Amino acid sequence: MKATRDIDALIELMAKLPGLGPRSARRAVLHLIRKRALQMAPLADLMTQVAATARECLNCGNIGTSDICDICESDKRANGMICVVEDVADLWAMERSGVFKGRYHVLGGTLSALDGVGPEDLSIPRLVDRIATEGITEVILALNATIDGQTTAHYIADQLQDRVLLTSLAQGVPIGGELDYLDDGTISAALTARKAV
Amino acid sequence: MKATRDIDALIELMAKLPGLGPRSARRAVLHLIRKRALQMAPLADLMTQVAATARECLNCGNIGTSDICDICESDKRANGMICVVEDVADLWAMERSGVFKGRYHVLGGTLSALDGVGPEDLSIPRLVDRIATEGITEVILALNATIDGQTTAHYIADQLQDRVLLTSLAQGVPIGGELDYLDDGTISAALTARKAV
Repeated sequence: MKATRDIDALIELMAKLPGLGPRSARRAVLHLIRKRALQMAPLADLMTQVAATARECLNCGNIGTSDICDICESDKRANGMICVVEDVADLWAMERSGVFKGRYHVLGGTLSALDGVGPEDLSIPRLVDRIATEGITEVILALNATIDGQTTAHYIADQLQDRVLLTSLAQGVPIGGELDYLDDGTISAALTARKAV
Repeated sequence: MKATRDIDALIELMAKLPGLGPRSARRAVLHLIRKRALQMAPLADLMTQVAATARECLNCGNIGTSDICDICESDKRANGMICVVEDVADLWAMERSGVFKGRYHVLGGTLSALDGVGPEDLSIPRLVDRIATEGITEVILALNATIDGQTTAHYIADQLQDRVLLTSLAQGVPIGGELDYLDDGTISAALTARKAV
């Protein structure tokens, strides 16, 4: 390895990113060095910028550049609905669809007996607070359809019962999905929830 | 997408790296933002540093932080041998093996009629110069075993014929390789070059 020390260190740090290993980190760094003026310098500047300004919203847990995120700030989003998601990535995925017009609540994970994650490790108490203070009438549980996700959804449902309307995302065949490629559980859920045409 | 503008721009730039797409770039950026003090700030600093200092060696084309790279600077590496590689990544791979003690010459690609890459686009003229000025006695053609790589090797061999000893890497079964997983060409090359035990 005959790159100088900074380049080696950069490759090592890049290799720690999720989805990159030593080999792809080397490729990425070589690519950046070749385009150092056009791509590497702007990327480094933006990264410095974001590292200094990014923070979690104190209200919902979304990531933005202010203490209270744009969604929590916006009056337009105060429609009495909160969508509960596990992770900021899930929140962004919901926002990309552009359909939901309410606010979010990021749990920061799921309950997990194995990993020792209890309700106090997630932001469930703050969710309970928000329902009262923000006048929430409906909570959409948009947790992942995994065992931990569903356990967490059940726990939250227990906590909020009788206070708000609780809903969850519909389960069924994805748009564009082919039956042959779907797992049995999805087909069975789609069949149970079938609709009149 | 409700991340603020800097975060969006950062994801977009990261998604341009080889091996990353929009989805993995989002994951990487979220990961970095969560570890902004420990990982993101050092990564940004190093990237700024490398963007400012990295450059190609004027002699061999290796990437380092000075106009002449450490390998070309070092007297110990002046053993009369030059190893010709397509790319800096190949040079680094050779260096990791730690076996070759001579110098390198990075072509920066391969001849390709389809892509319109001719000898003047690669650093072949400089290679010819170096053979005279550095007193080279052996040129190892370590080009990839692809059609373009081998075409380029043949072209260079034609240019250098009768001036130096020309060698190429041995072809055969990789160490730890299983015959069942090898392609026919490799097996046939290994069989042709078989050795007495």
